[in-house]
Amino acid sequence: MLHALFDLGPSSRQELARHTGLSQATVTTLVGEFLAEGVLHIAAMERNAVGRPYERLTINADRGRVVGVDVAETYVDATVYDLALGVLGRHEAALDEHQHDQAYVIDGIVGAIEAALDADGTDRDRIVGVGVSMPGHVQHDAGVSVFAPNWNWHDVHIEELLAERLRLPVYVDNPLKAAILSEMWFGVGRVVDSMAVVNIGTGVGAGIAIEGTLVRGSTNNAGEWGHTLLMLDGRPCRCGRHGCVEAYVGAPGLEATLAEIDPSHPALGRPGQRDFVESVAGGLAAGDPVLRELVRRTGRCLAAALGDLVNLLNVPKVTLTGWLPEALAPWLVPAVRDELPRHVLPGSLPGLTVELSEVPGNAVGLGMAAFTLEQFLARLGLVSPARTRPQPGAQTAQPIG
Amino acid sequence: MLHALFDLGPSSRQELARHTGLSQATVTTLVGEFLAEGVLHIAAMERNAVGRPYERLTINADRGRVVGVDVAETYVDATVYDLALGVLGRHEAALDEHQHDQAYVIDGIVGAIEAALDADGTDRDRIVGVGVSMPGHVQHDAGVSVFAPNWNWHDVHIEELLAERLRLPVYVDNPLKAAILSEMWFGVGRVVDSMAVVNIGTGVGAGIAIEGTLVRGSTNNAGEWGHTLLMLDGRPCRCGRHGCVEAYVGAPGLEATLAEIDPSHPALGRPGQRDFVESVAGGLAAGDPVLRELVRRTGRCLAAALGDLVNLLNVPKVTLTGWLPEALAPWLVPAVRDELPRHVLPGSLPGLTVELSEVPGNAVGLGMAAFTLEQFLARLGLVSPARTRPQPGAQTAQPIG
Ligand SMILES: [Zn+2]
Ligand SMILES: [Zn+2]
Repeated sequence: MLHALFDLGPSSRQELARHTGLSQATVTTLVGEFLAEGVLHIAAMERNAVGRPYERLTINADRGRVVGVDVAETYVDATVYDLALGVLGRHEAALDEHQHDQAYVIDGIVGAIEAALDADGTDRDRIVGVGVSMPGHVQHDAGVSVFAPNWNWHDVHIEELLAERLRLPVYVDNPLKAAILSEMWFGVGRVVDSMAVVNIGTGVGAGIAIEGTLVRGSTNNAGEWGHTLLMLDGRPCRCGRHGCVEAYVGAPGLEATLAEIDPSHPALGRPGQRDFVESVAGGLAAGDPVLRELVRRTGRCLAAALGDLVNLLNVPKVTLTGWLPEALAPWLVPAVRDELPRHVLPGSLPGLTVELSEVPGNAVGLGMAAFTLEQFLARLGLVSPARTRPQPGAQTAQPIG
Repeated sequence: MLHALFDLGPSSRQELARHTGLSQATVTTLVGEFLAEGVLHIAAMERNAVGRPYERLTINADRGRVVGVDVAETYVDATVYDLALGVLGRHEAALDEHQHDQAYVIDGIVGAIEAALDADGTDRDRIVGVGVSMPGHVQHDAGVSVFAPNWNWHDVHIEELLAERLRLPVYVDNPLKAAILSEMWFGVGRVVDSMAVVNIGTGVGAGIAIEGTLVRGSTNNAGEWGHTLLMLDGRPCRCGRHGCVEAYVGAPGLEATLAEIDPSHPALGRPGQRDFVESVAGGLAAGDPVLRELVRRTGRCLAAALGDLVNLLNVPKVTLTGWLPEALAPWLVPAVRDELPRHVLPGSLPGLTVELSEVPGNAVGLGMAAFTLEQFLARLGLVSPARTRPQPGAQTAQPIG
């Protein structure tokens, strides 16, 4: 129902029933509970054709505040939202990608959250929860960073550590799950119910929705499209395989490709990945032919890897998100679109769109805020969060792992 | 509810309600309708602890007959089932993989169905429907073979053509959709609700279920895992790409690999793909070291490609089906299991199983019979078949295709 309210804006009970497929009676009960908790309020009274008055309901934005935090290898981006997920304040802090220890990273996360709260002047008491996405494999139901390859973290109880520092309810998840939730609620999910959002930065992955179901997988590890093969026995990847998609289209992959084309190119001398990509964008704007070749090769690899995703799942829409496509979209998106028909089966091509995500702001932060809002409503007893437990099931054969 | 009856066997209304999550009242209504149409019957009367009598219900196997047909490049395999999907008769006919014309293929399909009916002595009047899987891209809701690469068919209205010849209701779909339905109902789907079944023969593909949803994709073209890349710019594939999984692990892929290892190997002289694979199986049983190397290389490619599937979807169970794994399982399955941990992310490995499918008989034929049974119940007004329409959705960007 929350999703319907975001989709529809201020809505009558009748519109909510139609949009959700719930009965009028169920919607009336739910609306009563949401109103009682102050999560909804009455936006307006209107009259229909026969003059009967009815209420338009909307999310009570001022009922509380939610923080959504995108933690990556190179930055922490924290956004403060009202309860209707409108942006109130935001702070981005750099993380040194070469510093791996827990205290450094946690200090960076807490510092960015506090700066975002200060920027908005938000009172701590009003915050109903903080959602933090962590790179790598996250067990969201246990609040654990199972494995973060860049920092070589194993089984860090990050939710508990952050909750102690912040003295606020914390929810952690993987950025791919956050990106697809925000795409489902605020992006192409408004017109289709199956889609993939491809997130590219240092790491590479895909959030996937199939017929309205957010694909988590049995250990919340779905979406590791960055670690599917483009080239058996190709470039070494930080996951241990050789030839993964990430090794070609992640930021370090672009550095490697540029070094193959012109090892003395000035963009390669920059200290960090984001500086590198910024200088690539600058050079492309200035018409550098070497960088045009870099985009051509990267676009071809990305199109091939997107072709695999589309051939497997036949999703009608793919969006790109993350700092790398945001910086390079004017050159990269056309290069991908040119190559894509050579990699997608003809039967899966009609109607397919590939575009930069239109989710506003930081899509991962917004998705984390949306998860956190669901958690808050669950604590109030208003929603049962979608089933989130892994389902190992009975064994029918000897497991591989 | 049908699925619950297959899962549970003879069941009380209470057990059906518990298993399906439907209310007792809904189940009682449904059971009444199913009994009235003769689709269910009362298997037994029992008494519970307090002595109240209750009925055990089961599918009325003799209410009618269903035919499930697996059409591949090299054969037609037709099975006659009772309404409880018990096998009554079966006939397999060879198709010449080099003959592509429509009349030849349709004659082959009709001939195999008639032979299967004759084998069982089934009266035509009792058949409630014939489900036929066609290789390639099938639009199941329109009954059209959109594209069959081996025969170079485009937009053949195969459902209509077969219905005219057979004078029976016909339902067509893609074998990957049939294979996953039978895996969901009769295979590992009895213990998990997300899984992939990998079908290997001439062509290669995967049927996918995510949290109980059969993944069809926006044009019923999902599952084309055979046309995802193992090796960018690798072996030419019949789809037009280079380096697809199918070019390495489909039957012609194995022939190509063997020719790389030993171009004069006697197994390469066989006239058809199935003869080739049979002679490989025979040679492996006799300990041929060249064929052991063929299995090692093929197992490595298959493990790499399964690793991609698992890394993307984090499914806990993968099964193998089709004539090629059935012939080579004793050698191929261990080779795949050995290699798999090098290709699956550690977070997706715990509990993962890869095994030959335990679905009895021809999994594709059984799945087609199950789809056809659903269609029959829908014609009786007893079920609304799962949403099957493609959902093109409003365009938010310029489509690629
Ligand atoms: Zn990798
Ligand atoms: Zn191919």
